[in-house]
Amino acid sequence: MIKVAVVGSTGYAGEELVRILFNHPKVELKYLISHSYAGKSFAEIYPNFNKITNIICINIETFLQNKIDDCDVVFAALPHGLSEDLAYECYKKNILFIDIGADFRLENQEDYKTWYGKEYKYPEIHKDSQYGLCEIHGANIKDKKIIANPGCYPTSIILGLYPALKNKLIDSKSIIIDSKSGITGAGRELSLGAHYAECNESIKAYKVGSHRHTPEIEQELSKAFGENIKISFTPHLVPMNRGILSTIYCNLTKELDTNDILEIYGEFYKDKKFVRILKENTFPEVRNVRGSNYCEIGLVVDKRVNRLVIVSVIDNMVKGAAGQAVQNMNIVLGLEEDLGLNLIPTIF
Amino acid sequence: MIKVAVVGSTGYAGEELVRILFNHPKVELKYLISHSYAGKSFAEIYPNFNKITNIICINIETFLQNKIDDCDVVFAALPHGLSEDLAYECYKKNILFIDIGADFRLENQEDYKTWYGKEYKYPEIHKDSQYGLCEIHGANIKDKKIIANPGCYPTSIILGLYPALKNKLIDSKSIIIDSKSGITGAGRELSLGAHYAECNESIKAYKVGSHRHTPEIEQELSKAFGENIKISFTPHLVPMNRGILSTIYCNLTKELDTNDILEIYGEFYKDKKFVRILKENTFPEVRNVRGSNYCEIGLVVDKRVNRLVIVSVIDNMVKGAAGQAVQNMNIVLGLEEDLGLNLIPTIF
Amino acid sequence: MIKVAVVGSTGYAGEELVRILFNHPKVELKYLISHSYAGKSFAEIYPNFNKITNIICINIETFLQNKIDDCDVVFAALPHGLSEDLAYECYKKNILFIDIGADFRLENQEDYKTWYGKEYKYPEIHKDSQYGLCEIHGANIKDKKIIANPGCYPTSIILGLYPALKNKLIDSKSIIIDSKSGITGAGRELSLGAHYAECNESIKAYKVGSHRHTPEIEQELSKAFGENIKISFTPHLVPMNRGILSTIYCNLTKELDTNDILEIYGEFYKDKKFVRILKENTFPEVRNVRGSNYCEIGLVVDKRVNRLVIVSVIDNMVKGAAGQAVQNMNIVLGLEEDLGLNLIPTIF
Amino acid sequence: MIKVAVVGSTGYAGEELVRILFNHPKVELKYLISHSYAGKSFAEIYPNFNKITNIICINIETFLQNKIDDCDVVFAALPHGLSEDLAYECYKKNILFIDIGADFRLENQEDYKTWYGKEYKYPEIHKDSQYGLCEIHGANIKDKKIIANPGCYPTSIILGLYPALKNKLIDSKSIIIDSKSGITGAGRELSLGAHYAECNESIKAYKVGSHRHTPEIEQELSKAFGENIKISFTPHLVPMNRGILSTIYCNLTKELDTNDILEIYGEFYKDKKFVRILKENTFPEVRNVRGSNYCEIGLVVDKRVNRLVIVSVIDNMVKGAAGQAVQNMNIVLGLEEDLGLNLIPTIF
Repeated sequence: MIKVAVVGSTGYAGEELVRILFNHPKVELKYLISHSYAGKSFAEIYPNFNKITNIICINIETFLQNKIDDCDVVFAALPHGLSEDLAYECYKKNILFIDIGADFRLENQEDYKTWYGKEYKYPEIHKDSQYGLCEIHGANIKDKKIIANPGCYPTSIILGLYPALKNKLIDSKSIIIDSKSGITGAGRELSLGAHYAECNESIKAYKVGSHRHTPEIEQELSKAFGENIKISFTPHLVPMNRGILSTIYCNLTKELDTNDILEIYGEFYKDKKFVRILKENTFPEVRNVRGSNYCEIGLVVDKRVNRLVIVSVIDNMVKGAAGQAVQNMNIVLGLEEDLGLNLIPTIF
Repeated sequence: MIKVAVVGSTGYAGEELVRILFNHPKVELKYLISHSYAGKSFAEIYPNFNKITNIICINIETFLQNKIDDCDVVFAALPHGLSEDLAYECYKKNILFIDIGADFRLENQEDYKTWYGKEYKYPEIHKDSQYGLCEIHGANIKDKKIIANPGCYPTSIILGLYPALKNKLIDSKSIIIDSKSGITGAGRELSLGAHYAECNESIKAYKVGSHRHTPEIEQELSKAFGENIKISFTPHLVPMNRGILSTIYCNLTKELDTNDILEIYGEFYKDKKFVRILKENTFPEVRNVRGSNYCEIGLVVDKRVNRLVIVSVIDNMVKGAAGQAVQNMNIVLGLEEDLGLNLIPTIF
Repeated sequence: MIKVAVVGSTGYAGEELVRILFNHPKVELKYLISHSYAGKSFAEIYPNFNKITNIICINIETFLQNKIDDCDVVFAALPHGLSEDLAYECYKKNILFIDIGADFRLENQEDYKTWYGKEYKYPEIHKDSQYGLCEIHGANIKDKKIIANPGCYPTSIILGLYPALKNKLIDSKSIIIDSKSGITGAGRELSLGAHYAECNESIKAYKVGSHRHTPEIEQELSKAFGENIKISFTPHLVPMNRGILSTIYCNLTKELDTNDILEIYGEFYKDKKFVRILKENTFPEVRNVRGSNYCEIGLVVDKRVNRLVIVSVIDNMVKGAAGQAVQNMNIVLGLEEDLGLNLIPTIF
Repeated sequence: MIKVAVVGSTGYAGEELVRILFNHPKVELKYLISHSYAGKSFAEIYPNFNKITNIICINIETFLQNKIDDCDVVFAALPHGLSEDLAYECYKKNILFIDIGADFRLENQEDYKTWYGKEYKYPEIHKDSQYGLCEIHGANIKDKKIIANPGCYPTSIILGLYPALKNKLIDSKSIIIDSKSGITGAGRELSLGAHYAECNESIKAYKVGSHRHTPEIEQELSKAFGENIKISFTPHLVPMNRGILSTIYCNLTKELDTNDILEIYGEFYKDKKFVRILKENTFPEVRNVRGSNYCEIGLVVDKRVNRLVIVSVIDNMVKGAAGQAVQNMNIVLGLEEDLGLNLIPTIF
């Protein structure tokens, strides 16, 4: 059995990770680390785990002192800036570290400084880390010890755009991305804006043109295309617990119709279990993937304006965080990619 | 008192219209016409009207036979294709007709045929009708007898884009509109897709690039700009009862920053009570206008890509339907534009 | 014009009160007092008021120093224990004080101590205060200077039970009340439990048998019946912004059928504009009264068990707080009881 | 592998059953039968199954003609009155039949006639059927060929009351049950009342004192107590997809405090994996069991009135329908009771 610890286990992504790992047939969940709830039982914080686990949360100091060496894999779901020290410890000890946070996603330290306002503490370990969008980078992560799990918005967007860019179907200057996320995307920190009555029965745009996922999206799209790409990106908050739907607009540079492009997408993702390309005139809904590791993509060429419109949905908590983290672990450790991830979406 | 009839009173827009007209200080609500519920009391269909009104719904035949002559104004909230006959009757009798449906919105009969699959029955009365987006066309409707009340999506979009186009700030070929609507937008007809469990906790795009509001939006934007404009338009359904948020993207043709454009917008709408331009770094939320006739607009120049992003919200049932219909009536009849419309948004 | 101040104006009940008072034809809203947001414009806190009011919130010290004397009426929507000092100031100055909080609801100081853990500071002014459930106590409040506005749960419950108790139809020992409230009932204080993802798609009971509204309910029911009554009361939180539905169970002491009791209720409330008694086989829904000052009551005799089941709904923010406070003001000042309260429920 | 068919597979309970059976390690899902969608692929009806299954739905005639003999187990999720014929076929062929519908729940044919308005067609097979509330009747179903899967409300209620009745702690005449259900409880038939905008942001009671689950609840409670019991039962619809919370009130006949009763409950359910008894001062929330087969029970003695209040929650689609059906199959076939049911609740 693979021995696993989850640091930041009592945030939203952490809880989801525990839920998935708990039923993973090759995993033994050893330690749950929590800053806010150390000493409390996990099932007290998350009563859905009543009668399922008796694990007591411990703090990070205890974990580092005398527990970390028991582990094969450490997952971290922490606010940015807090993962690096832990990654460094794991790296020294040759323990696989999978970071659900943002600290290892940007290859260019300047970008990190610009968008997150901090410098890397251990630049040397960043070189040995790998951005782990499984369907794109699966082959590259196998020998890595630090995996940067992609952000939720970037996962939906990069999977949606990658084949079009790779195949140079579109004008790289024309990309506009309009994303809509459920409220868990805002995290579990106390905030008035996350109160039920403050976001229910409403929708809002936020951080228009300035969300921190922008450089991550641009980095990966640029690599796909082979040139620097800048995008427009607007995230929105929608009154639902989970899920992201990204609507992506771009100008076609060739004369193509919907089925031509569907064929290219189908071919590109043909071996990727977790990507579903919908047939013509069908578009994804968040509920089609809720609770699962799937990314579902529909697209259409709007002939009137010669523009390609791509709609991509994921569950922000699963494919956008915990599920993909487990998928990354599976790949690095040479397990079946979908082990523990056979979650059928809960359409209701 | 102005004597008023509402045809199609038991649909969602109809009910909202009755609600607003009921408290309008200059209106006497004379007749409620309903195809489905003729003979039933309105309060039985809509129990929120219990102890408020005893009006019994009548069918259209009864209305036309011996009631229509009592009316000064007839409102219609009907599926497309059903308003024209009624409009013709009103026109002959010199009764003001305000159509919340789609039959009089498109000036070009060809567009109507292309998008709605029908021809006009009485082309001559269309020439005498006027598209009534109050803040734009207020001056033109005063002598008209047939007012085409704008669609819900178009209202949010045209108000959001008009000053930018009128002032030639943007590339007219670059306009992309991503709109999100509450579920009442789908109407009250029985449909599985409108069932609670089929749209709750989800979001979806629909009619991507093919929604019937497209030609209406293009017609009005083209007039603003002075050239033919084609747009990309994607509507989405969001789990909330009411409201529309439209996020609009366009390339700037000039070097402008956010405040330059805010100033232009502020100037353009300075005398328009129902349009609120938000200050820099502030963006609208649907709840800020819920239950009211306001349109709220925020915008930002994304310097990284030299693109203007405009976010516009309305209540689809009020400014997007019933409220604007009443505003149109007020204007045509020379009343205060906001009479009966002093509805403070219900933020909760 | 009646000059009015609202203390605690930026909580949920406060905002609703401002919204109602703003359109009240006889009220001039002079001062908005806020502990948390003094110095900020009210429209900044509640952007639904953009372009509607420019009032700047002030703190209580400023208000007491040199503003209070401008006022005819002071409303307070404060946590318990904070109203008494202010009430005392108003009392000395002969200003009408309407308390939406809990400080004046319990006639028996012992009850207050037991349930709220505090003693009255100015017992003498309590004697001169009056519990203001308008439909029951309307006649008693006309000469009072301190009005205790009823709690939200008690309003729905007392109106639902009063005629049955007054007419001795039921066994007073058998009363069981199961209430369901929207999330605004929890107030605006930061709390994890009020976060969207922590209460959406769920329902829970809380404070089972120990909610502070219990003694208030018992006090009023006991007065109606003429003997001490003890009840079972369980409140629940339901994922909706507003509204309360109370289901009330009690054993009949007489042989009565549904219509007998409906007649008694109809007679009892026949002059009460804001109470709607539904006909047989019809039951209230929260949406039928949403955004309005109505209380809607349906009932049935379950012959199988000879039990009366009463279902009562209100909008917790309006009839359960701000609306009834305005109704109380209207009554004390000799205005039409429904002035400013002609709010038609928003069924959608 | 156990070969299984699901009749009524495209209703809400049917889809959930398919979802659970699909991941059951000992089950091969052979046939999906659907009246409305015969000839269509299941994944077209329920796109969450895209890339997961290619099964095409067949109609019941085809199934009976030449498929039924391939099956070891047939599940039916049909409106009442439609299961009996099918059960009879299975019975003759010695195939295990598990009925999620209502046709085999009532032992007394008179009750069925009174509440459902029909007579049994094959009374003889009813004698050989067994009501399958697993935690209560597990031992009795092992040799049965027709299992009546309990209704959703009854499951939450009977599990909540059973130990109290069995141990004669309460006055059997005093039982009052107030249940709240998510909207999937209303089924997938087209109906205006199930439309999003007609039930969102609201709550309502329905079929007060007359719901068809009443005789089923009374039958099982009576057996537990050893005497005929009549109850008050009021179901409500709450704006959420899934889940039931039942609040149960009854008078204590002994002097007991909360912990005495918790001990009795803990003892009674100590070997029942799927029942969770909460410790004192803790109450269940629907989200704690969402998506799982758990029933969670909290309770308190309200000393003021000597009444016991029990709160019980389940997921109406899982423990209240599909999950318990699989649990019943597991028991009858001698498998581990929780095989395929290790679903950790999705708290978000």
